[in-house]
Amino acid sequence: MLIREATLADWPAIWPFLREIVAAGETYTYPRDLPEEQARAMWLLEPPGRTVVAVDDGGAVLGTAKMNPNHMGGAAHIASASFMVDPGCSGRGVGRALGEHVLEWARAEGYRAMQFNAVVETNTRAVALWRSLGFEVLATLPEGFHHPTKGYVGLHIMYRRL
Amino acid sequence: MLIREATLADWPAIWPFLREIVAAGETYTYPRDLPEEQARAMWLLEPPGRTVVAVDDGGAVLGTAKMNPNHMGGAAHIASASFMVDPGCSGRGVGRALGEHVLEWARAEGYRAMQFNAVVETNTRAVALWRSLGFEVLATLPEGFHHPTKGYVGLHIMYRRL
Repeated sequence: MLIREATLADWPAIWPFLREIVAAGETYTYPRDLPEEQARAMWLLEPPGRTVVAVDDGGAVLGTAKMNPNHMGGAAHIASASFMVDPGCSGRGVGRALGEHVLEWARAEGYRAMQFNAVVETNTRAVALWRSLGFEVLATLPEGFHHPTKGYVGLHIMYRRL
Repeated sequence: MLIREATLADWPAIWPFLREIVAAGETYTYPRDLPEEQARAMWLLEPPGRTVVAVDDGGAVLGTAKMNPNHMGGAAHIASASFMVDPGCSGRGVGRALGEHVLEWARAEGYRAMQFNAVVETNTRAVALWRSLGFEVLATLPEGFHHPTKGYVGLHIMYRRL
């Protein structure tokens, strides 16, 4: 697996699984009917943000991550990141590889911490993965997320120092 | 004191004290040299956001608040808000009046909670005001804010149910 910069040419490979994940409405605080143009603008970031894809040996896109400052001004030393793994490629360590890559990037860029603003508490695989990469749940917004089948569930703010 | 919708015509009255507060770099996670065009675009919101001004009997602008969804999609029931009071008008209850107004607006709009993402812990007047209006510190990002004279200080996430 290789992780490299995403380009506009990767978008047709990203959009099908990104759309599927967003439409499911279980893990992301995006509108479930997010239009493609808006999704592309939100996902493919310009500096100081950055977007990468994880690809297999044949060049197929397995997942993607975007990383960016979480705040501006006096809090611009805190980074954020978001991740999408093709559900057909789960269990292959793609999320973990992207997570490790993003942490390395943030350290190299001089960020002092990484903060995830909205991790749905029922997304237990993601919560466990971030914990294993050194993140803690700094707080949980009670009933912060309306899950399509589980109703109102907590929304974690996760954090780690770099 | 009257609180009413802000219009573009209010901007020349808002900008001097907003610029002063942002340039001080002590309370807001905005770039200290925020250009006016960008400041106006960030502050004067379109629906579903909203911006108001507090004015005195003579129509002078004493302070301003903007309010908006804090998240999208499944977390769009959480509101956020930001406040700027002309430092020359402090101690007159402008911040409290704006805070109460914003809470009423959020309830009327059907939001279930309000979350402030970045309250600098050394901004003790603001922290005390929000506590008195029912907010709690849900979490503090350690060293989350670089204060121009106090160095790295905590950045609170404050929250209240509606």
